[in-house]
Amino acid sequence: MSHRIYNFNPGPAALPLPVLEQAQGELLNYRGSGMSILEVSHRSAWFDEVLNDAVARTKRLLGLDERFRVLFMQGGASLQFCLAPMNLSAGDKPLDYVDTGTWSTKAIKEARIQGKNVRVIASSEDRNYTYIPTDIPVDEEAAFLHITSNNTIRGTQFREFPKAEKVPLISDMSSDIFSRRFDPSPFGLIYAGAQKNAGPAGVTLVIVREDMLERVPAELPTMLKYTTYAEKNSLYNTPPAFAIYITGLVLKWLEEEIGGLERMEEINRRKAELLYGYLDAQDFYRGTAEPASRSWMNVTFRLPSEELEKAFIEEAQRNGLGGLKGHRSVGGCRASIYNAMPLEGVEALVNWMKDFAAKNG
Amino acid sequence: MSHRIYNFNPGPAALPLPVLEQAQGELLNYRGSGMSILEVSHRSAWFDEVLNDAVARTKRLLGLDERFRVLFMQGGASLQFCLAPMNLSAGDKPLDYVDTGTWSTKAIKEARIQGKNVRVIASSEDRNYTYIPTDIPVDEEAAFLHITSNNTIRGTQFREFPKAEKVPLISDMSSDIFSRRFDPSPFGLIYAGAQKNAGPAGVTLVIVREDMLERVPAELPTMLKYTTYAEKNSLYNTPPAFAIYITGLVLKWLEEEIGGLERMEEINRRKAELLYGYLDAQDFYRGTAEPASRSWMNVTFRLPSEELEKAFIEEAQRNGLGGLKGHRSVGGCRASIYNAMPLEGVEALVNWMKDFAAKNG
Repeated sequence: MSHRIYNFNPGPAALPLPVLEQAQGELLNYRGSGMSILEVSHRSAWFDEVLNDAVARTKRLLGLDERFRVLFMQGGASLQFCLAPMNLSAGDKPLDYVDTGTWSTKAIKEARIQGKNVRVIASSEDRNYTYIPTDIPVDEEAAFLHITSNNTIRGTQFREFPKAEKVPLISDMSSDIFSRRFDPSPFGLIYAGAQKNAGPAGVTLVIVREDMLERVPAELPTMLKYTTYAEKNSLYNTPPAFAIYITGLVLKWLEEEIGGLERMEEINRRKAELLYGYLDAQDFYRGTAEPASRSWMNVTFRLPSEELEKAFIEEAQRNGLGGLKGHRSVGGCRASIYNAMPLEGVEALVNWMKDFAAKNG
Repeated sequence: MSHRIYNFNPGPAALPLPVLEQAQGELLNYRGSGMSILEVSHRSAWFDEVLNDAVARTKRLLGLDERFRVLFMQGGASLQFCLAPMNLSAGDKPLDYVDTGTWSTKAIKEARIQGKNVRVIASSEDRNYTYIPTDIPVDEEAAFLHITSNNTIRGTQFREFPKAEKVPLISDMSSDIFSRRFDPSPFGLIYAGAQKNAGPAGVTLVIVREDMLERVPAELPTMLKYTTYAEKNSLYNTPPAFAIYITGLVLKWLEEEIGGLERMEEINRRKAELLYGYLDAQDFYRGTAEPASRSWMNVTFRLPSEELEKAFIEEAQRNGLGGLKGHRSVGGCRASIYNAMPLEGVEALVNWMKDFAAKNG
């Protein structure tokens, strides 16, 4: 497709072109229904198939066994910051959190608003969230241990998850779900706003282990209980149907065109190595995350001056490389290279960076 | 567009064809951005324009003055059932509700779950919710008076709103917002899942009067507070961008192609009169709502037997008239004739009904 740019936005982010083309092709008439997928009933056989296919693909891709339920909710990870402690506390047991920056910090804040017994058992605040803490002191008395697997703003990512043993892990995986293989069994809850690595904005993928559902307090409002979604296959009320449909197409692309998570992980590794390799081989650009904690999804870097950063971002946009501005809270530059960003896009970025450095270095 | 059916689904429901065509045309490259609207940042100028245009059109269409804030939220009306009492109670003042069936009943349940002082001051349960109560005993001591302006399941609709005087009215208008003119000034809160008369599933339009925002308790979770959305123009976190975009296109169609709410109301009146006129002129089909309370949006009717109803629904589907099945909780038939259903669709339905009655009567 001509006139498409390489889109390095952090989310909403690039979607695979075949997904967009399929959605476009069937937007006025979904598979002979005579209706758009935007118009079909969520109680119809057409939508049942969309929903159940997305659930099945999620289970296959992540290797989830029968203990896990896959839910599609709304409100983004931000709503999950509040729902996780609301639903999954266990009496007065402490809720343990690792603070790796903005999103973890917000999750901690939402648990505290509810008056929960929150403990921040590890933090990278001391070095401006540029790394992921190791040797996390897991305490078996905790109700859960919450982490943010990837920090989009600081460009850091857990390479290995804490050895939580008997404590259920909870992770916000909004920005790296489906990017690599991992063992799901220690996780009691995984949640992910879809708009980075799984689909468009407007749907939140929630994976909850059945034993955690026993913790959900009966007296919570219906729409704030994980059990409501688990018992009704995400159809208690009208779900965000189109966003689930697009997510399903992305997962189909991941399974059938990419070839699954092992292959996706290998591509993501190559993309990250290419970009970090270049960053390490010169001194015009400077990566901001500590090397052992670098994210394969969000590559954050600075230029010698804010003036040059501004020029870099604007000129890149004009040259078909969009969304390279760092988060407004930290400044600098950021290339988000999620699943849908092909290796060719990262090659194009590195070539552009070389040209810009040669002209401005 | 050939092969499109007349879609009488209750929601998700038919969308105007020009809206779908525009979305299809620009799905791979939104206005020269080189990205799909599904991929652009919610912090970009492109999306700012989408959001602010949808807000401005809502205000113009409904004649909202500067006291009203227009928010785009997620979770549907079902989440609002819980948020309205959570946010807008006033000390221990009673929360008054009118019960006109399923959706009102659920709203009442969610307020009670929170332990609120709920009073059902009028109900049509005595005649199986086939009418809208009149002479509602408004009590100035109430914190608010909650109604459901249109009941999709029973096919009933408020023709005039209660004279609430000093008590702020709250209405779930999911199924009839933008279908007719009304005076917004008595309303403290209006909410509407977009998927019936305003857009696709996945976004909830919320209109809140500024004085009501003063009631929002400071200690609520961030994502459950109306003030969070009001203070950040619905951009505290990533909004359901595509659903807002489609809603904006629907409102543009309503303003620029239909010609505004007065014209839309006139078309809706004609559609309803055509269908109810036919129902009243024969005795094969029988309307289920009492005439004075009939909905212009959802026309509910029965056939002489459930067997005939099944045949009617299935044969209609095969003849290009879809979604005529009544809600699973009440059975029978239902034609939802929201804004996007043209008069020609209702004419086609009446002609079909005549043919079916002639063959089976």
